[in-house]
Amino acid sequence: MKFRTHDVMPPPIVELMKAAEGYFNSPEFLNLGQGLTGYIPPKESLRVLSEQIWNPSLHRYTPDQGLLELREELALYMRRVHGIDANPQDEIVITAGANQAFAGAIMTILEVGENVIVPDPYYFNSVMAIQLAGGRPKPVPVDVNFQIDVDAIARAVDDRTKAILLVSPNNPTGAVYKKRLVDSVVDLCLEHDIMLISDETYARIIFDGGNHYSPRSRRDADENVITLGSFSKDLGMAGWRVGFIVASSSVIKEYMKIQDTLAICAPTAGQMLALEVLRNGTDYVDFEMERLAHLRDLAYVRLRDIDRLEVTRTAGTFYLFPRVSGCTDSQSLVLDILRETSTLLLPGRIFGVAGEGHIRISIGPLTPEAVDEAFDRLETYFEEH
Amino acid sequence: MKFRTHDVMPPPIVELMKAAEGYFNSPEFLNLGQGLTGYIPPKESLRVLSEQIWNPSLHRYTPDQGLLELREELALYMRRVHGIDANPQDEIVITAGANQAFAGAIMTILEVGENVIVPDPYYFNSVMAIQLAGGRPKPVPVDVNFQIDVDAIARAVDDRTKAILLVSPNNPTGAVYKKRLVDSVVDLCLEHDIMLISDETYARIIFDGGNHYSPRSRRDADENVITLGSFSKDLGMAGWRVGFIVASSSVIKEYMKIQDTLAICAPTAGQMLALEVLRNGTDYVDFEMERLAHLRDLAYVRLRDIDRLEVTRTAGTFYLFPRVSGCTDSQSLVLDILRETSTLLLPGRIFGVAGEGHIRISIGPLTPEAVDEAFDRLETYFEEH
Repeated sequence: MKFRTHDVMPPPIVELMKAAEGYFNSPEFLNLGQGLTGYIPPKESLRVLSEQIWNPSLHRYTPDQGLLELREELALYMRRVHGIDANPQDEIVITAGANQAFAGAIMTILEVGENVIVPDPYYFNSVMAIQLAGGRPKPVPVDVNFQIDVDAIARAVDDRTKAILLVSPNNPTGAVYKKRLVDSVVDLCLEHDIMLISDETYARIIFDGGNHYSPRSRRDADENVITLGSFSKDLGMAGWRVGFIVASSSVIKEYMKIQDTLAICAPTAGQMLALEVLRNGTDYVDFEMERLAHLRDLAYVRLRDIDRLEVTRTAGTFYLFPRVSGCTDSQSLVLDILRETSTLLLPGRIFGVAGEGHIRISIGPLTPEAVDEAFDRLETYFEEH
Repeated sequence: MKFRTHDVMPPPIVELMKAAEGYFNSPEFLNLGQGLTGYIPPKESLRVLSEQIWNPSLHRYTPDQGLLELREELALYMRRVHGIDANPQDEIVITAGANQAFAGAIMTILEVGENVIVPDPYYFNSVMAIQLAGGRPKPVPVDVNFQIDVDAIARAVDDRTKAILLVSPNNPTGAVYKKRLVDSVVDLCLEHDIMLISDETYARIIFDGGNHYSPRSRRDADENVITLGSFSKDLGMAGWRVGFIVASSSVIKEYMKIQDTLAICAPTAGQMLALEVLRNGTDYVDFEMERLAHLRDLAYVRLRDIDRLEVTRTAGTFYLFPRVSGCTDSQSLVLDILRETSTLLLPGRIFGVAGEGHIRISIGPLTPEAVDEAFDRLETYFEEH
């Protein structure tokens, strides 16, 4: 029997986790593969949730669109963090994570055979969602600093282009796209009446004086920008599967068909926790960002001492994405590193053609000691190979 | 801009909820619209979960496929409840609810332009998922007892048919399909090498001596049956968004692409709660079924006294699906009943052409007093109209 999914790329994390399975219980195992920050929401919010466990409404569906109080609180939060306005009534939906939001956005707008322009390296789930919808991802390589190449994007637009995807701060490169470049892409979208999907999952994970720019903050772009966000990374809520989508009411109206069909609603307890977290203030994120800043400094210093790794320092996320000189098969390299050092990294090739020859190092959940240990191992490995 | 979703039916629940919004806070409002049982998981399981709130792993992703311990416990549970065998390693995935499982199954197997045979009346989200995937739902009316018409299904199979959907016990009719009929559909699927998607969300909500029959229990059908289940209804866990899919390892391998793209994983806390619930035993469901059996008896007695309602008593679920004599527009009828009696029902037409002229009455979350009150109102309403 032929399956629709035959042409969709296999889920790389699932495949890698299978390879790594034997290492998980080893005391030496270091996981620099998973995209996670290492903290959880603050005690006071968790305490409120634990007391709510006996509340019957925690066990029932919320409205498909999400708890109204959460959408209202989120609108305030987004104005502060993303610098954008959104009406909680008809421009926001609480989703079961940003992945569902992206796949849903694609299923809302993309007709079979249409294409989406995707800066390469890309987040692999984006490409999988486009393939799944019967669309065609059109990768356009980024420049040497991992910034988007607006001219190349403009050249890639054709009459079957429905959207351009920007993920800033970027997974896997950590690049924070410059306002000027993002604005040029917005102009391009308005000119051709195509959508800009702006995945802002890592909006608060920015360092080195970088600035997050959310294209929806441009008033003329309301109808053409779909903004995605997540509580998984910066708020430390990955396991709760809560994210959001912000778009014009005409897009949201269509999106609700997907929401009802795929999710019904985001998990109620996760929504309640997110509401508590937003209400209590999210200063803990700033505190954790200071911690992460030190980790990043440490990691970049250690990286520079490894001759075979060539790194471009970017301002966002907890990922480092060095090129490995001489590497043409990052998958084999990563499996070899795992075997020899019990350290899991992600191979650049799962992030696209432009990612091949790179490795993604996630330091989000690590202690400084673990970062040091990981780089000791990498240093030794690359000296020997 | 043309959206892909333009040809997908609007989400009926979302639309109805908008109409009903003004009534929710009224003390007179009675909600017989929502598909919910009225209870929550037992105290001991909730207590364990509330203590786990401080455990960092509760806030992290689980493996995409779901916690291994949960899959193992679920395999034992399914053998008991569904009478089927499934290997927790490669034949089970924990999903973010049965809706995601169904949409994911469709996206796994259905190529654009292929069709799925759907007994009519149908659960509207099934049809929406098929439309969303670019497929074509092929409704085949059930017989006067709401049982499937196997001959009509056989005639509907054509060379573009990829699957047949059976939902038993059925939403909205409550019908529990006879083993003989289900077996005939399995034979049909094997003969034409098409898939049987068996949605068993209501597997334990069966009364009047009815028996649930799970087609996967037939050893020769392993490769052609996809079984869906939910913790939302019988286990009282709707808000947690946890369900499952069981299929051959070749289908599951493909399904994992969808799982990673749409959900990453089901919510961790919901999975942990489900694990606790299954470990502690689910006898509370039997207790609640006794309560629901009395409610159903009461509702059927009251229904018989309303001349304009013609009811076929079915053995499953907490739904009643009477025909309203003379009704050709159930949507208007339901809105009128809402306005005049502050009681929300679902219009039969959202469940398909064969559903028009019916209303769906959900008594799952009600007390006996509320059931009596609801039928007092309906009796008065139908006397006056």
